[in-house]
Amino acid sequence: MKLHSYWRSTSTWRVRIVLALKGVPYEYVAVNISPAASEQKLPHFADVNPFKQVPVLEWEDSGKLVRLGQSIAIAEYLEETYPEPPLLPRAPLPRAYVRQAVEIVNSGVQPLQNVSVIGAVRQMSGASGAGKWTKEVIANGLRALETLARSRAGLFSVGDELSLADVYLVPQLYNARRFGVDLSPYMRLSAIESRAAALDAFAQAHPMRQPDAVHVED
Amino acid sequence: MKLHSYWRSTSTWRVRIVLALKGVPYEYVAVNISPAASEQKLPHFADVNPFKQVPVLEWEDSGKLVRLGQSIAIAEYLEETYPEPPLLPRAPLPRAYVRQAVEIVNSGVQPLQNVSVIGAVRQMSGASGAGKWTKEVIANGLRALETLARSRAGLFSVGDELSLADVYLVPQLYNARRFGVDLSPYMRLSAIESRAAALDAFAQAHPMRQPDAVHVED
Repeated sequence: MKLHSYWRSTSTWRVRIVLALKGVPYEYVAVNISPAASEQKLPHFADVNPFKQVPVLEWEDSGKLVRLGQSIAIAEYLEETYPEPPLLPRAPLPRAYVRQAVEIVNSGVQPLQNVSVIGAVRQMSGASGAGKWTKEVIANGLRALETLARSRAGLFSVGDELSLADVYLVPQLYNARRFGVDLSPYMRLSAIESRAAALDAFAQAHPMRQPDAVHVED
Repeated sequence: MKLHSYWRSTSTWRVRIVLALKGVPYEYVAVNISPAASEQKLPHFADVNPFKQVPVLEWEDSGKLVRLGQSIAIAEYLEETYPEPPLLPRAPLPRAYVRQAVEIVNSGVQPLQNVSVIGAVRQMSGASGAGKWTKEVIANGLRALETLARSRAGLFSVGDELSLADVYLVPQLYNARRFGVDLSPYMRLSAIESRAAALDAFAQAHPMRQPDAVHVED
């Protein structure tokens, strides 16, 4: 398998964690989505993903080239085809709780603070306006996750087993720090993050461990 | 079951379609999320959904009150607990294609054109700026879906069977029209929409058929 990835893309980071947890080897294909390069918008990439985003997982299926975008679609596919270790509980209700937490990050927060949206907001309202926007959308999601964790979390986001909810949480907390969000109100989420970050798969998938990582200040 | 709903919320519309397709009866609880009312931000609603959005599906599970937010979590839960008719294919690869199309709408388009984001963009760049923003984010998603449909669609978005991909597509196309997006480049999507719209479940779930529907111009 090949993974079209950018070191600091949190959406791709989630997929790297799932691949590492399930022990699936893959080739890393770097796509520089930083605003100056925007390789995901180059013509050849339209064949890789017409939605012009990473991650994309690529493999051959019965001799046919498959390219799959959207981290959720990839994570659920890997869960179905590499079931061990499971990243969704067995019973429908806790599975639903995991998917709710996943989607608060995936559709409720990340799309509003990805590189292209922040760029657009900066154009409309300047750097300070964009900074305020980003902090607000992230804090808005973390508040909801912290509240849900009160009744649903154990050692991890839903009960005591690691799940996709944790896979989505950890990169989002990294972005929260990157954008200067005060994390002190989110004690439960921070405790879960510490437990997850101690696992090898999370460490391997970390942005700074990727071949295209750049040491930057912003 | 109770569904916390707003007639014109496309995220809730998706859930109404799934409930109708699977023949699950429910009580309709209207939540007025129009900017003037913003009932989802009132204190009591924080207990219903700490993320302050509709849809929320509510029911009793073994005597315990369950409230589940996020359309994807609800749709996947209903798929697992009311398997007929199936809204995901059986094989992992077409299932992944369905989830990819679903997420292009759910995380790639809708969050960028929901009522609160459009309101924020209008504050930053005025009504014409907000109109341009909305058209662009919707067209961006539809372009990708139309391209994917070339190789993956049959009578519906993925193959010849109705799936969640179609459940997510139809409300998004309604919003596209509402915001003045030219749909002529999306012939495959329009054909799929016509087939889906002819089904009773889609008609019953339509915004104008809901008890809180208001005849408005905008």
